[in-house]
Formats: sequence, structure tokens, C-alpha cells
Amino acid sequence: MAKKLSNRRKFLKNSAALAGGLAAGATQSANGQMPEKYIKGSDDLVAYGQRSSFETAVRESHGRPHSPDAFGLVKHVATPIQESVGVITPSALHYVATTRGHYVPDIDPNAHQLMIHGMVDRPLSFTLQDLKRFPSVTRLHFVECAANRPSIGAKTITESHGLTSCAEWTGVLLSTLLKEAGVKGSASWIIAEGAEEVKGTSSIPMAKAMEDSLVAYGMNGEAVRPQQGYPLRLMVPGFEGIFNVKWLRRIKAVDKYWMTYNDYGHLRQNDVDAALGYTIGPKSVITFPSSGQQLPDKGFYEISGLAWSGGGAIRRVEVSTDGGKKWKDAQFVGTPQRMAHTRFTLPWTWDGSESMLLSRCTDELGKVQPTRVQVAKFFGIPVDPSYRVPGRDNSIQTWRVASDGSVHNAYS
Amino acid sequence: MAKKLSNRRKFLKNSAALAGGLAAGATQSANGQMPEKYIKGSDDLVAYGQRSSFETAVRESHGRPHSPDAFGLVKHVATPIQESVGVITPSALHYVATTRGHYVPDIDPNAHQLMIHGMVDRPLSFTLQDLKRFPSVTRLHFVECAANRPSIGAKTITESHGLTSCAEWTGVLLSTLLKEAGVKGSASWIIAEGAEEVKGTSSIPMAKAMEDSLVAYGMNGEAVRPQQGYPLRLMVPGFEGIFNVKWLRRIKAVDKYWMTYNDYGHLRQNDVDAALGYTIGPKSVITFPSSGQQLPDKGFYEISGLAWSGGGAIRRVEVSTDGGKKWKDAQFVGTPQRMAHTRFTLPWTWDGSESMLLSRCTDELGKVQPTRVQVAKFFGIPVDPSYRVPGRDNSIQTWRVASDGSVHNAYS
Repeated sequence: MAKKLSNRRKFLKNSAALAGGLAAGATQSANGQMPEKYIKGSDDLVAYGQRSSFETAVRESHGRPHSPDAFGLVKHVATPIQESVGVITPSALHYVATTRGHYVPDIDPNAHQLMIHGMVDRPLSFTLQDLKRFPSVTRLHFVECAANRPSIGAKTITESHGLTSCAEWTGVLLSTLLKEAGVKGSASWIIAEGAEEVKGTSSIPMAKAMEDSLVAYGMNGEAVRPQQGYPLRLMVPGFEGIFNVKWLRRIKAVDKYWMTYNDYGHLRQNDVDAALGYTIGPKSVITFPSSGQQLPDKGFYEISGLAWSGGGAIRRVEVSTDGGKKWKDAQFVGTPQRMAHTRFTLPWTWDGSESMLLSRCTDELGKVQPTRVQVAKFFGIPVDPSYRVPGRDNSIQTWRVASDGSVHNAYS
Repeated sequence: MAKKLSNRRKFLKNSAALAGGLAAGATQSANGQMPEKYIKGSDDLVAYGQRSSFETAVRESHGRPHSPDAFGLVKHVATPIQESVGVITPSALHYVATTRGHYVPDIDPNAHQLMIHGMVDRPLSFTLQDLKRFPSVTRLHFVECAANRPSIGAKTITESHGLTSCAEWTGVLLSTLLKEAGVKGSASWIIAEGAEEVKGTSSIPMAKAMEDSLVAYGMNGEAVRPQQGYPLRLMVPGFEGIFNVKWLRRIKAVDKYWMTYNDYGHLRQNDVDAALGYTIGPKSVITFPSSGQQLPDKGFYEISGLAWSGGGAIRRVEVSTDGGKKWKDAQFVGTPQRMAHTRFTLPWTWDGSESMLLSRCTDELGKVQPTRVQVAKFFGIPVDPSYRVPGRDNSIQTWRVASDGSVHNAYS
């Protein structure tokens, strides 16, 4: 890429304009940057560092339908995805959905156990110390709430797309534990239960449990955070967020689908149908520029966004800046991982006219992210996005860049 | 791997032993795990999550020679590497070396600028907003202090190897900025300066600056942390830590090596010689089991560790459990990245006898991590590790597992 860039003249007119004043008095300018304040070291700061007090990105309660609830409690908390860089979501900013319980369990890891029972030869119970003795895997995976979608009411991308995050998860393959317990061949489902208030459980097809599901104790290099399921979270890569059971304490092998508290339209008693139905489709969104942001002036920008799919790795992302007439292939930043956020970029020179920015992705199965028109047709609802899709919506998000540089949700 | 595992009987005898008590009373046991406490949600917790109060891993001041100094200030702070999982070091636990200044600058990002001047056609000054408009890259890179090494006095791996960490860095290639400024062909070095108390600068060969150096504003998905150089850090992948200038404010293109405050034995006025001399050699260490840890009993364990090299990606890691007589190839967890920590694992069944655990790695250049004997011979010092190597030491670390399961630094 570096070679290509050298053929261009200059990216930024502004930075060049500054040069005039600097050429003569360069050293003074550098001294002028000398910070007047220092952060005095403290034992706390040495022990476990903090972010700068100038950094203010925070999670936000997600949309009016979700928060606060009748008890005044926030249930869904969205990550400030417009601030994201790279593919890791900082654990402190990872989105949270707490539909299953109002409070976060405060679990002593030394007292916590994971039980595997039901249709197994040897019901087993594992302490954290036990689990850490098994062969481990570390994988980058996204989690996404089924409610994450383009929305007519969303003023910012956090409101429309902030219910997905991506982290480096470390733990034991669930297949390792199920084999250790001697899972029976006739067991076709598992039920995974968390330790929270409502004991929210999910029925998961055995094929998915054995393929790539993960009992995670690590997240971004340290223990899973409390809001993400400390000390154990079941990762079911690519399935709707609700299947990634937090505060995991019990897995039961069974021979049929069990209806549970978590069944928001998940009544699929055939395991293949269920596996397909629970999987997040190919999805992408431009995080910069996105609604609520402001372009300072005409000129060069790098369009940047995230793409992901429950169907595996992202193979292609295309970006349009003219409402979908012409598309260009975006670049990947790094190698796309399976069921993980993939950062894409496209260089763009904005000419100052109103522009409609879209991205669409294709996953390794060849599935292409649909338009709103296609999704509406599939569900038999009007194209007008004020009609909410009765299920997951992975349709394309359009941002409108106005001629004053302000960026808006094109559906609003 | 899952298939291989199914051929083994059981990994853990202990977990199986628990099964007897569980077979009948499984449900009671699960209920017994119900947490009695909940973390009540607060605005703070919603905004920016925290780790569990049960998690206590912290950074430690590094070794007696380093901390505290004559002014009572801690200069080097080591990451608790024995607790590491995966390859990301949490930003809060990333190691810190503050030889260049006693306090961490508290920089307002809106006032901070990066100046590029010297042998360029157009001296330029960039705000953070300017830099974020350039094409970005995101890369996993380690940083390591030259002082990180096997040591006779180290009681734990944090003391011997805790001065290296790995993060996902996002920013602009330095080559992009140097080209924007029109760097002259006759410029053969850069001097990079930070904004801290002593303005610690480093001379870096131009070839390295243009190849893969990075002006990073992002770290693990958010802004670079203050202790790592907020708001800008120069990443010089694979070079000694001190070259990765924190609080970066100035880069000057020059035509010769400049001696600076940071020159701890770096006097290499030939740029090729310097580039080779500054590069971290192939290095690995077993993080589990490591000194200070305790194996609870005989049986199955997964040996796990980290390998890295300034010479590119790690190609091979071998592990010995008998003091180096026999070696087995370890598995990689994920795909090794260039100049990044790579997690390796090897299944191991401990028979309860004293065992000497070693790892050695090979990088993509074919360079192999040396033994202490080789390093001693190279530097002309005694093999006895109480003699400190007069330079970087990437020699093999040996851990001794005693028959009671306690793990020790074999050099102590």
C-alpha cells in the first residue's frame, strides 16, 4: 500500500497549510507542545492502568424500547461503535444485554462450578482450576444481539448497530468437555444455563456444541468481565447473542429441543433448521463517517467499517458513495477471522456534495448482505424502514453525508 | 484437535472423581452454585465496565535494580505474564518502562501535535484529527524492554519476563506521513521525540521508519493508554522497547545518527548495523507452569507459553520437559503474526518426578533462540547466569518442577 500512496500528492490540504508557519520556528512549536501537567504515579495506577481522563467514550443504554424498563433498570447497553478502531472491542466497552436478569451476578470463581450432565456416561462438575487444565483455544469472535439493526429512529450508529462487539476469547472447546463426560450419540441438543436471576437457558443443537462452541474463561487477555459472564461464558460463534450464555453453570445433554425463558421466536424443534435460524447473517456497517459525525471539510477521508457473519469469515466488502449505483471493493485490515469483526477501509475524496454511503459484505459461504428491499420482500412487510423486521435484520445501512459535512441516518 | 482428544480416555482424574456425588443429586449441586450476591448496576458500571473484584492480577515494579529509584519512584512496571491468556495483554496490565521521565504526561489530545521536519520538502504538523484522516493500519505487535531476560534472582516469571506485552495497535504508517512531508532521499535516520520530562529521543534508521513503523493512536480498540504514550506512540515493530517513543510529538529526518539521552549502549552509527543491533532476537518463555506456580497433582496439563521475535513471525516452537534432551513441537494457538506474541501449547502428562521445562523458538528468518551457554560464549562471559549479559539476552528459560508440584526458576 505504501507504494501506491507515494504516487498521490498529498492527503491533507490542512496539514500542508500549517507548514508555512512551522518551517522557520519548528523547535518553538515542539516546545509549545510540552505538557504542563503530569499524571502523578499512584499505587493504583501502577497496579492496573486507566485510560486518559480526556477519553470519554462510554456505553449507552440502547434505544427507547429497551431502557429503562418498568423497574427503572437499563437492560441493553450499546458499545460506542462509532469510536471503534481495529477489531477488538475494549472489554470495558463491550455491549451488554441483560434481558435475562436485572443484576450482574457477583460470582466467587473459587466456588463456581460448571456441571455437565443429562445424556452422558459420566456427569461431571468442573471447577475453574479444572477447566484451565484442559487444552485451550484462543479465538477472535463477535457477539451480536438479534435486536441490532438499521432503524428509522436511530440518531447514531451506537443506537442502530451498537449491540455487537468483538473480543479475543480463551477457553476450552465444549466438545472437549462433552467428550470427557462421554456424551451419548443419541443426544441431539444441549441446554446451557447461566447463574443469573432468571436462570436464562438456551437450547443449542448438539452439532453446533461439538463444532466450535467454547467455554470461555478469558477475554482480551484477562478474565471474562462480570457483565460478559464472569467467570465463564459459553461462546456459540455466529449464533444470536442470547445463546452465548453468561455466568455459565450447567450444560445438560438432551434428545430434543426444550422451550426456555429465552425463546424469543426461537421455536425451532428441528436442529438443522434451528442452527440455520439462529445464525447471524452477513452484516456490515460503516463506522466512519456515520450518523452524528461531522466532516470538517472537503478532501481525503478513509471510509472505515466493520463486517461480520455467523456463516464464517468475511470474503468481500464493497462500498458505495453514491447510494448504491457504483461499488468499489474495500480493503481488509488484517486477515478476516471466522465469526469475527473484520475491519474494512476505502480511500475516499469527498467533493462536498451530498453523498450516500453504503457497505455490503459477502461471507465465505457466498452469502451477500441484503438490501432493505430484499429483507422487506422476504418478510412480506413494507420497504419503509419504520416497519420493524419481525426477526433479525442484516440489511444494508445507508448514511447520508449532507453538503455541510454532517452525517445522518438515511432512514430517519 | 478435537478428534485426537476423543481417543484419550479422560484428561482429569479429579473431575471424574466428582461425578460420583453428582450423578444422583445433579440439580441440587447446580442450585448450590447460585450466586448470593449481585453487582448492582450503576451509571459508572454501565458507562465503562470494570473487572471482577475477585480478579487481583496487577503489575509489579520490576526487580530491585529498577525500583524504586533514588527519588522513591518506580521506573519499570512488569505485566503479570504468568496470568496471561491468549496473545492480547490487557491495556491496564501492559508493562511500563518510564526511564525517560518520572511522571506520565497528561496530554490534552486537542492541543497535541506531531511535527515532522528536518530533511523534508514540507515540514508538517498534524493534529490528532489530521492523523485520523489518513489511511490506517491495525496490527498486533509486542513491545519488549531490553532488560527482560532470564535472571538468577527472579522468583517469578513476572520478574524475569514481565517487561514484554502485546496489543492490537491502530494508527498511520510513518511512511505515509514521511511521504506527505516529502522526505528527502538523502535522509538516512529519523529522531523521534516524546513529550515527557526528559524529552527522551531515539535515532532510528530511515529504512525501518519507512518499512513498517507506525504512529499509533489506537490500542486494543480504544485510545492508547497514558502509560503507553497517549495520545500518540511510535511503534517500531521488533526494535527494543525504548525506540517505541511514547507521547510522540516530533520526528526529524536527518542524515546521520544522533546520540541522545536514550543511548544505553546504542552507539551504532551505521544504519544497517543499528537496525540489526536494535532488533529483539527470537525469544520464548513458558508461562504455565512457571516459577511460583504450583501443580496440584500428577496428571494432564497443558504447557502454555509465548514466543516472539523482532525478526518477523514465529515459525516453530519446541518444548522439552526433560531439561533439553528431547524436544517436541508445540502447537500454535491461531496464526503467528509478525513481531507479535504467539501463544504456543503442548499437552503434557506429569508423572510426579522432578522435571525441567524449556521452550525454544525459531523465527521466519530461521534464527533459533539460543541457550545460556551459547549466549555466554557470544558475550565472552561465564555460563553461570549470575553474570548478567552485557546486552539483550534472549536465551532459553528453564523452569524446574519439583516432585511436590512447586515450580522454580532453574537458575536460582
